[in-house]
Amino acid sequence: MPELRVIPVEGLPEIAKGDDLGELISQKLELVDADVVVVSQKVVSKAEGRIVRLEGVEPSARAIELAGGHDARHLEVILREAARIVRSRPPLVIAETRHGFVCASAGVDASNAPEAGTLVLLPVDPDKSATVIRGRIGQLTGCDVGVVVSDSFGRPFRTGIVDVAIGVAGIAPLADWRGQVDSAGHELRSTVIAVADEIASAAELVMGKLAGVPAAVVRGLEVRGRGSARELVMPPERNLFI
Amino acid sequence: MPELRVIPVEGLPEIAKGDDLGELISQKLELVDADVVVVSQKVVSKAEGRIVRLEGVEPSARAIELAGGHDARHLEVILREAARIVRSRPPLVIAETRHGFVCASAGVDASNAPEAGTLVLLPVDPDKSATVIRGRIGQLTGCDVGVVVSDSFGRPFRTGIVDVAIGVAGIAPLADWRGQVDSAGHELRSTVIAVADEIASAAELVMGKLAGVPAAVVRGLEVRGRGSARELVMPPERNLFI
Repeated sequence: MPELRVIPVEGLPEIAKGDDLGELISQKLELVDADVVVVSQKVVSKAEGRIVRLEGVEPSARAIELAGGHDARHLEVILREAARIVRSRPPLVIAETRHGFVCASAGVDASNAPEAGTLVLLPVDPDKSATVIRGRIGQLTGCDVGVVVSDSFGRPFRTGIVDVAIGVAGIAPLADWRGQVDSAGHELRSTVIAVADEIASAAELVMGKLAGVPAAVVRGLEVRGRGSARELVMPPERNLFI
Repeated sequence: MPELRVIPVEGLPEIAKGDDLGELISQKLELVDADVVVVSQKVVSKAEGRIVRLEGVEPSARAIELAGGHDARHLEVILREAARIVRSRPPLVIAETRHGFVCASAGVDASNAPEAGTLVLLPVDPDKSATVIRGRIGQLTGCDVGVVVSDSFGRPFRTGIVDVAIGVAGIAPLADWRGQVDSAGHELRSTVIAVADEIASAAELVMGKLAGVPAAVVRGLEVRGRGSARELVMPPERNLFI
C-alpha cells in the first residue's frame, strides 16, 4: 500500500462562466494516470453559469413563510432548486435536491458567490460536469484521471461540515468489500466504503475555505472505474437512521 | 499551502490486550512535529482489552426482541453499550453510545474481532485513548503529534461508510472560519469544518479494511490544538436534520 499525496492546485484564476476548468487545472500541475482531480462545486457552478441574481426574484408565499423575516428571495431560489423540503427552522432549511442530495439550502450558497446579491446553485448534473472535465483533461494530457466534484455538507448527529462527492467521473464511488473475509476469517458483511466522499474530504484539507484553492489532486489511489454520485444517495427505504 | 501526505503504518503485528500502540507505531516510521497519527478504533479497543465473549452473555427480553431471531447475545452486548436505541429493524440497530455517537450497533463490531464468538467494543474514553498514545509517542520521539482514533460510521441520507474521529488528542477537531470573509468579502457564516473527521477519512483511504493497516500518518497539516471528539457530537437541539 503506497502513500497517498493530496496536492493543492494553486494559482487558478477567479472562475467565470465559460472557463475551461479541465484546461486550467492541466496547466497548473503535471497529472498522471489514476490521479483523482477534486474540484469544488463552487467553481464548477461558476464555470457553468449557475448563478442567480436576487434582484428580480419574486418570492412566493411559501418562501416568505420559510424566510421568517429574512430575505424571502433567497428562500425562493432554494425552493426552486429543491425537490422536497426535509426540515425548516426559518430561515434555515434542509432540502432534498433534484439529484437526491439532502443538504442545507438545497445546495444554494451565498458564500464565495461572484458578487453581493448573487447566489450559486449546484450544477444541474454534477456527474456530467465531472465527465466533461475528465474528458478535457484526457484530451489535453492523455492521462486517465478520475474527477470528483465536491461540496461541503452538514451531517445529522455530527457537528461541522465535511466535503463529500456530488459528482464523479472515471471512478467507482463505493468500494464494496462485502463477501470478502477479514484477517480473522470473519465475513465483512456491511463494509461498503464511500471512497469518493473520503477523497473529497481528504482534498478539502488542502483546499480550505479562504485560501482560494478550489481544486486538489489525490495521487496514489487506484479507484478507477465507473459510477455515479447518485450511488451515494441513500434510498429512503434503506435509511435506517431516520 | 503545502501538499499533504497520508502514509500507511505498515508491518504492525496483530494487536492484543496490553500492547503499546504508541511504541509500536513510533518504531515503524519516523514521525515529525505536527504529524497526525490516525489509529483505528479496532486496534485501540484490542489493546485496551475491550473484547466481549458471546459465550455466557444472558440476553434480556429486549435483546431477544431486537434480535428478531438472530443471536440475541449480540444484541444484549449492544444494549449494554448503548445509552439509547435510536432506531431498530431487527437485527439491526442504530444506537447512541455513552459518548454521544449515533452509529450502527453502538459501535459493537464482530468484524476484525480477535476470534469467532467475540465482539469488539468502543474504547471507554476514546479521547483518553488518543491522549495516552500521543503521550507515549511524545515520550519516545520528542515529537508533538496529534492523534485521532477513527471508526467507520454509516450516515443518514448517504450510502457507504466513512471513517470519522471518535477520539482526538493534541488537535482541534473543528476549524472555525465563522466571522472571516471570503475572497468576495462575504462572511462565512456557517463554515465550521470537521477537520478531525476529514483526517480520519483521508487516513482510511490508505488503511483499507483487509490490508491489515490499522494506522496512518497524515503529514503536512497544521491542526495542533486542544479539543475533544465530543465537540463533533451534534447536540440534539441543534440537529436540524432530524
